[in-house]
Amino acid sequence: MADSEEAISLVLFSGTEDRLQAAAVLTAGAAAMGRPVHIFLQYWALNAFRRDRIDGPLPLAPEAGAEGKEAFDAMHANGQQAWQQTLRMAKELGEVDIQACSLSMDLLHLEQDQLDPLVDGIEGVAAFYLNAGQGQMLFI
Amino acid sequence: MADSEEAISLVLFSGTEDRLQAAAVLTAGAAAMGRPVHIFLQYWALNAFRRDRIDGPLPLAPEAGAEGKEAFDAMHANGQQAWQQTLRMAKELGEVDIQACSLSMDLLHLEQDQLDPLVDGIEGVAAFYLNAGQGQMLFI
Amino acid sequence: MADSEEAISLVLFSGTEDRLQAAAVLTAGAAAMGRPVHIFLQYWALNAFRRDRIDGPLPLAPEAGAEGKEAFDAMHANGQQAWQQTLRMAKELGEVDIQACSLSMDLLHLEQDQLDPLVDGIEGVAAFYLNAGQGQMLFI
Repeated sequence: MADSEEAISLVLFSGTEDRLQAAAVLTAGAAAMGRPVHIFLQYWALNAFRRDRIDGPLPLAPEAGAEGKEAFDAMHANGQQAWQQTLRMAKELGEVDIQACSLSMDLLHLEQDQLDPLVDGIEGVAAFYLNAGQGQMLFI
Repeated sequence: MADSEEAISLVLFSGTEDRLQAAAVLTAGAAAMGRPVHIFLQYWALNAFRRDRIDGPLPLAPEAGAEGKEAFDAMHANGQQAWQQTLRMAKELGEVDIQACSLSMDLLHLEQDQLDPLVDGIEGVAAFYLNAGQGQMLFI
Repeated sequence: MADSEEAISLVLFSGTEDRLQAAAVLTAGAAAMGRPVHIFLQYWALNAFRRDRIDGPLPLAPEAGAEGKEAFDAMHANGQQAWQQTLRMAKELGEVDIQACSLSMDLLHLEQDQLDPLVDGIEGVAAFYLNAGQGQMLFI
């Protein structure tokens, strides 16, 4: 199917666990359909991909409240796949490219060797747009 | 006009009243122009469509502050249309399909009969992508 | 290159400094590539474009935390370009149109002369969709 071969691009801004999980689910779904996925990591999402943090606990959005926290705690207790595992699986399954935003790297004083190997490289906004082409684009 | 007949797809993640209202306004505007609208409910947005909550008070984004709360309170006091009423009107007016994300249903331990009748069904991420085609897509 | 001449449209909802900076960077990048950029200001983003606020301090997203605040404080101390300056530069550089959402103007009881001259006008959702055409669209 032609449609499903079209690339999708995600700008990940937020580093809360709930939004990262939403992004991981959308990535895995697209990859499973044979669509290339381009991910561009900015700000707090980039911080969440730090090698020393990627397996650590992350906050939820404030609106999650006690009820949301309970739902995520139950998910963790059940051993269900976390967002970073879903992304690793999506990269094995399909064509998923994860790039750190160079401006955010500067802002947060990060070097690439501080990032988890899930991150394939560093690029600027222009490169992100060129890779995205005219495909669908989400800001998460 | 060919452009206005193109579908638009919204992934609703957030369940704050301000973001749901933004989503409802964007939905009603597209529906009024004859564009089909596909809505995919995840996480806290899905929770806001529970039958026992859809008419209840919802939080605003933290950044709304006291001033934002005052603006929304004045809107409520004036009897202006709330987000769920705007969505109901948009469904009467045009082609608006609202689907709950099956993974979020599991996470929040929800069954379809707990959801408001505004929700037309439950679907997975793959079905969402197929219905969206190559049309515009927003994550709210 | 044909691709880079396509317009991109941004719905700005959030008025936190970090999201406004992300939006400004995405705008400047697109403008530098010769792409027209349409910006539609809603809710708290619109509030941030008030003449009496645009140069004032803005909150960060709660998830930024103390570490994020420190990174932004260091950026300010270094005299690096702020989001509103990046947008001004982008408007000089390329074709960037910034419109206030008429419904949000009503909600926040604003008149156009209360807005910074960066804002080119006021429009409704239908006009926003017409200007956006079928180009890429982000909700920030």
